[in-house]
Amino acid sequence: MIRATVWNEFFHEKKWEAAKEHYPDGMHRVIAAALGADPAISVTTATMDEPEQGLSRERLASTDVLLWWAHMRHHELADELADRVRSRVLEGMGLVALHSAHASKPFLRLLGTSGALRWREQGEREHLWVVDPGHEIARGVGPRITLEREEMYGEPFGIPEPDETVFLSWFEGGEVFRSGVCWKRGAGRIFYFRPGHETFPTYHHPQIQQVLVNATRWAAPKGPPLREQIAEAPVPVEPIGRSRRGSA
Amino acid sequence: MIRATVWNEFFHEKKWEAAKEHYPDGMHRVIAAALGADPAISVTTATMDEPEQGLSRERLASTDVLLWWAHMRHHELADELADRVRSRVLEGMGLVALHSAHASKPFLRLLGTSGALRWREQGEREHLWVVDPGHEIARGVGPRITLEREEMYGEPFGIPEPDETVFLSWFEGGEVFRSGVCWKRGAGRIFYFRPGHETFPTYHHPQIQQVLVNATRWAAPKGPPLREQIAEAPVPVEPIGRSRRGSA
Amino acid sequence: MIRATVWNEFFHEKKWEAAKEHYPDGMHRVIAAALGADPAISVTTATMDEPEQGLSRERLASTDVLLWWAHMRHHELADELADRVRSRVLEGMGLVALHSAHASKPFLRLLGTSGALRWREQGEREHLWVVDPGHEIARGVGPRITLEREEMYGEPFGIPEPDETVFLSWFEGGEVFRSGVCWKRGAGRIFYFRPGHETFPTYHHPQIQQVLVNATRWAAPKGPPLREQIAEAPVPVEPIGRSRRGSA
Amino acid sequence: MIRATVWNEFFHEKKWEAAKEHYPDGMHRVIAAALGADPAISVTTATMDEPEQGLSRERLASTDVLLWWAHMRHHELADELADRVRSRVLEGMGLVALHSAHASKPFLRLLGTSGALRWREQGEREHLWVVDPGHEIARGVGPRITLEREEMYGEPFGIPEPDETVFLSWFEGGEVFRSGVCWKRGAGRIFYFRPGHETFPTYHHPQIQQVLVNATRWAAPKGPPLREQIAEAPVPVEPIGRSRRGSA
Repeated sequence: MIRATVWNEFFHEKKWEAAKEHYPDGMHRVIAAALGADPAISVTTATMDEPEQGLSRERLASTDVLLWWAHMRHHELADELADRVRSRVLEGMGLVALHSAHASKPFLRLLGTSGALRWREQGEREHLWVVDPGHEIARGVGPRITLEREEMYGEPFGIPEPDETVFLSWFEGGEVFRSGVCWKRGAGRIFYFRPGHETFPTYHHPQIQQVLVNATRWAAPKGPPLREQIAEAPVPVEPIGRSRRGSA
Repeated sequence: MIRATVWNEFFHEKKWEAAKEHYPDGMHRVIAAALGADPAISVTTATMDEPEQGLSRERLASTDVLLWWAHMRHHELADELADRVRSRVLEGMGLVALHSAHASKPFLRLLGTSGALRWREQGEREHLWVVDPGHEIARGVGPRITLEREEMYGEPFGIPEPDETVFLSWFEGGEVFRSGVCWKRGAGRIFYFRPGHETFPTYHHPQIQQVLVNATRWAAPKGPPLREQIAEAPVPVEPIGRSRRGSA
Repeated sequence: MIRATVWNEFFHEKKWEAAKEHYPDGMHRVIAAALGADPAISVTTATMDEPEQGLSRERLASTDVLLWWAHMRHHELADELADRVRSRVLEGMGLVALHSAHASKPFLRLLGTSGALRWREQGEREHLWVVDPGHEIARGVGPRITLEREEMYGEPFGIPEPDETVFLSWFEGGEVFRSGVCWKRGAGRIFYFRPGHETFPTYHHPQIQQVLVNATRWAAPKGPPLREQIAEAPVPVEPIGRSRRGSA
Repeated sequence: MIRATVWNEFFHEKKWEAAKEHYPDGMHRVIAAALGADPAISVTTATMDEPEQGLSRERLASTDVLLWWAHMRHHELADELADRVRSRVLEGMGLVALHSAHASKPFLRLLGTSGALRWREQGEREHLWVVDPGHEIARGVGPRITLEREEMYGEPFGIPEPDETVFLSWFEGGEVFRSGVCWKRGAGRIFYFRPGHETFPTYHHPQIQQVLVNATRWAAPKGPPLREQIAEAPVPVEPIGRSRRGSA
């Protein structure tokens, strides 16, 4: 059983009608319901207004994959908690960074780059093309996903060269974007997935939900916890012995 | 001085008015003139109808960067010559594969994949976006190149995950494509550059010419020939000695 | 159920006492027994002296992961069969290339490089260090595997930069080697695993067997066959429609 | 002219005889002299006890490649200065991280991982093997560098999968290490080079000096400054216009 936690800053959906309309209980609820439909995944949610901003050690320790949505409140996240998330990823927890999470502290601290991009909020058409049809995250999605109205994100996107590129986006206004990209950091897997502006019904779209399920399965650690095997700091060791023929 | 050779199958420009119009002496002449404008590059051309299909050992031995255009006659290239090109790349010669060279023997033998893609020949608008503004191949090109009429190539593109992605294309008809991508194979650098359909004036475009110059500079070997250092087959060796304390 | 096929040229074990001693029925039998101990894997074997060199279309079509051992008879493999294996990998079949398979036709046609390396056959000590403890192929293996007697393979190894590096080897005689490395080509996963010289009992070693099981699980395709989704050649397509506002 | 700055925490060489013996004026002086012997490089040095810890905006703005040596005083570096270095790398400044810089703030903030490793200080023999003989950083170095006495660093090394691997180390005591590895972050190039313990004369070794010169040349930005082209934060943009046929 994969233990997923959907974390949301949960701000726009409480303040703005345009977001409330599609996500009256918050985007995290819609995403969690989509994941919960997969019998291999058990889901909980967390929001920024909970104690420890929803990121207690206990919660992270019992999370296999963390999905992250944030936008206006990136700067409010405590540095210590951003580092706590980062450490858990290095230990093996998967991270699925959604939409404006490109500028969130945990994402940037794991990747080291700016996360900068071009953007435009006009509700234009987006095609997400599958670039790697054999990838687990693209399974069952078909050649492309079309969203009739989305915010535009355009290149150059300030990320390290991805380990794997799964989706590329086309926008009506003329831009392109690396919309579904994978990295590994330590024992953890990271997937960034572009769509999901708060004023559009993107997370209700069945193909988008399929990608979220696939990504959660892909990002889940594949074996027992590695805490003992993976050092967080340099470790002094003895020589392991040289030749069996007596040269040691 | 970088010694570039522009190789062309030189077929369409002799047979078809639509190609002759833009390239009366062949595409290789226009590309060679663009490269020759850079004082750091000396250029020659070669075509498929020359002896040894323009790929004699002498010519390849004196080529630092080979630019390759072919389309209808891929299958006519002798296997032995395809392997000769491949070997020279592993030794350090750069390869710039242009447009329909995605299906050429040297390119596929170096990459191992299908090179498959979707295509449509309607002369539609293409934007090539710079994804990696700090890359040598993108220098001086600006945020994007717009071509008013080009053939469309769409994902999925059957290539290995690129080492570096420099350009991504947007097409009027709705597709995207990894249009400028880099790999290293052995000591050689490979750059694939998508635009360049024979019935459009693409190789006359100043920004496209800038990319060709940049790519030739980037793909050129950075030091003396490595023939002695790089083995083509397994090499038996003696132990190099173990401890300085007498066990060797 | 993962359907694994262990393919062996099956030459040394019939001719040479030093190989017969450890593998009286062939290395493929020992490897198959190790894989068969995992209830998630069903195993068959194939050898070069069978009809179609053991690589009929039916066999490949019903193989999820192909393990390949060959050494003296690389050149005897029919080119057409090497290409058949390559095509199946691009379609999604996993390939685990063992030891001297670094110079085999399927491996080199998929990677495009020379596969060259330095070697020495003195039965020296090898340590295989786990470089990526979170990787599926390293699960349960511990920090390293020590083999008391193995053939040495040394760098430089003529391969493309790996997508992932799982093991690095240390040799008593002073060399190092990238011993466990991963690539993706098309929809297929490729793992090269260095140890396994025919005159040493390497494939009887429990940690080596664990790696073979892990690698088979890792290399298996993760979903339904993709034959329809993955083109082997360029495909002409119609525009998908442009703006919803009537420009299409 | 490449403007290199050699930055050193400059601690051990003032306190410990074992370091003073080899580097009476500090390691930065020896490294700077090696770089200065290349007429293409102009060198300055900086140390942690200077104003702004030697990292003023002016100094960084006029630095093309920063070489970094630190060990005991990583934690003393001001966070603001670590971020200043990181920003300059994203803008295009090269970073050559030396030896114990694997645990320095700028290196870890650019890579996002732990930088953890195993270590042992016994002055044992190390062989650095060239894995990528065609790489600029390996030019003129030969098949390997042997250091008679060095500190051991062993895998697993907590870094992202490198973009390029140039050197792998063998240690007398049985370990291996990825000793020369490259990444790109933003427009900047990063090279990590393992050797250089303060109590051994490593930086006086001619092959090590050759690598430092090669790395400085490799890491230098290849064109004009990119400050205007590379955003540090999201940028709103207008549509660039759609079809030339009137839909824009």
